Amino acid sequence: MPDERGIIRIFQESLGNEGFVPEDVESFKLGGVRMFASMDTIVQSTDIPESMSLRDAARKSVVACVSDSAAKGIRPRYGIVSVNLPKRVRRATVRSIAEGMQEACNEYGIIMLGGDTNGGSEIVMSVALVGSSKSMVMRGGSSAGDAIFVTGPFGYAPAGLAMALGKTGGRGRFARKAKDAFARPVARLNFGVRLAKHASSSMDSSDGLAATLNEMARQSRKRFVVEALPEASGVREYAESHGMDPEEMIFYGGEEYEFVFTAPLESRKVISRCAVTTNTPIIEIGHVEPGAGVFRLDDGRALRVADRGWSHF
Amino acid sequence: MPDERGIIRIFQESLGNEGFVPEDVESFKLGGVRMFASMDTIVQSTDIPESMSLRDAARKSVVACVSDSAAKGIRPRYGIVSVNLPKRVRRATVRSIAEGMQEACNEYGIIMLGGDTNGGSEIVMSVALVGSSKSMVMRGGSSAGDAIFVTGPFGYAPAGLAMALGKTGGRGRFARKAKDAFARPVARLNFGVRLAKHASSSMDSSDGLAATLNEMARQSRKRFVVEALPEASGVREYAESHGMDPEEMIFYGGEEYEFVFTAPLESRKVISRCAVTTNTPIIEIGHVEPGAGVFRLDDGRALRVADRGWSHF
Repeated sequence: MPDERGIIRIFQESLGNEGFVPEDVESFKLGGVRMFASMDTIVQSTDIPESMSLRDAARKSVVACVSDSAAKGIRPRYGIVSVNLPKRVRRATVRSIAEGMQEACNEYGIIMLGGDTNGGSEIVMSVALVGSSKSMVMRGGSSAGDAIFVTGPFGYAPAGLAMALGKTGGRGRFARKAKDAFARPVARLNFGVRLAKHASSSMDSSDGLAATLNEMARQSRKRFVVEALPEASGVREYAESHGMDPEEMIFYGGEEYEFVFTAPLESRKVISRCAVTTNTPIIEIGHVEPGAGVFRLDDGRALRVADRGWSHF
Repeated sequence: MPDERGIIRIFQESLGNEGFVPEDVESFKLGGVRMFASMDTIVQSTDIPESMSLRDAARKSVVACVSDSAAKGIRPRYGIVSVNLPKRVRRATVRSIAEGMQEACNEYGIIMLGGDTNGGSEIVMSVALVGSSKSMVMRGGSSAGDAIFVTGPFGYAPAGLAMALGKTGGRGRFARKAKDAFARPVARLNFGVRLAKHASSSMDSSDGLAATLNEMARQSRKRFVVEALPEASGVREYAESHGMDPEEMIFYGGEEYEFVFTAPLESRKVISRCAVTTNTPIIEIGHVEPGAGVFRLDDGRALRVADRGWSHF
């Protein structure tokens, strides 16, 4: 039984793309113009807990796709959508989904052109977005000596998912931020577009921080060393009071639409300015070295950060 | 409970596209280049009978999307795909799906760039294709006096579906053509690209011949009069021997990837040449008049062709 990476490999082999290097967006040229497209899908049985509104789920289907482009420095301009709906769908349900998508399109300046609808045993929303750009920031561009950054701290979204599933209660400021991170995520579009000129590599972290760092290290053929955990304030207390592992939540939480990116040290200042201008929290978490793999420093010891993603609920 | 057209209307209202006119493809401009995108989805529970191979279903998901572009005179160049797979999917299943998509891409000269995969309770394949062109043939461009044509006769695909569902046996030449029409459909891409300069309007007929004619008549604000039924050879005998209505199969069968198109009379000759060059059967079925609605002539009487689509099984 292949995992997601295995499935993608089988596809790429069958498509004859042997030297295929996975990216957040697909690049192609039409009429002499360099274009970028990304596609993201939200599936009821794996991505939408019962307590989540369909409006929020629909909004999130667009946001997730925007985040893929944003991490590459590309502003998506147009979208098309495919929605599967059960046969006995109510008018209000359709309206909630359409309004959620439109909400995200308004937030990110995207024109949703249309698409198709189909019957199905569960709700599925697939969003494809396209934009043009001269270039994109790759996953594998870092050099030894670069600093590693992330936007925003990690741990909110997996806590929000646990709350949405009713596994844990949640009150106070941490719970509010956690629920929002899961149900109302934000794509760092304006920051990503500004960052593009200055980052040596960048990737959307929605597959989990550990998986993202490992993918970037692998594609750069470098070692990534994490010196400081980008820990959301309150996540440790929350995890401990609910019998969860805070580092598991931070490294393997998933569905956090933050960027992981690298840049040469001399770009620190200009990147800080981009972050301030766009009101984006950035955290420097480590550095790039010759070598391979992802390690975190814990009391001077280097511990390997295992390369596994998160699993759907 | 809204039907598909109702669902699309709700979407378009929510998206603020009030004067929205539905088309087979979506048009947009990027970097000064006019682009066209279409999206099509195949869902296991509604589109894939158990007797159909996943390889054929995957191939068909691409062919259906190619046909949408082809009817508009647009050659799609690139694709991205989203595939939902049950958690315990076998490697061979993934390979069948990938190979089926690649088969269609080879047939139509499409480069499949990549996409995403997701868990889900049923198999779903969404294909988005993009191409560029200076213009497209609209659904609503016909004038009074134009002739109405279709490619290929109708009735094979619904008979093939009935056979695939095991409702009826099928032997001989008719059964072979019917099964192929359902499981191994062909998109009229080369003909569509050549036709573009000569047709006044055109549309893919996969929603059914009646629904397609009605949509084109409505968008043209004209009356479409059908003088000759484009009846697949053998469909009447097949229908009668299985208690089915042949005209129901022809007008409301659906999933026949033929074009319905109109053209001025003086283009007949050049259109015939396009058809011969690309080995495409075309049938002149009627003409366009001032007025509204779709009618068929039966012994001199004009009978209304009701505007309803086909339903998924």
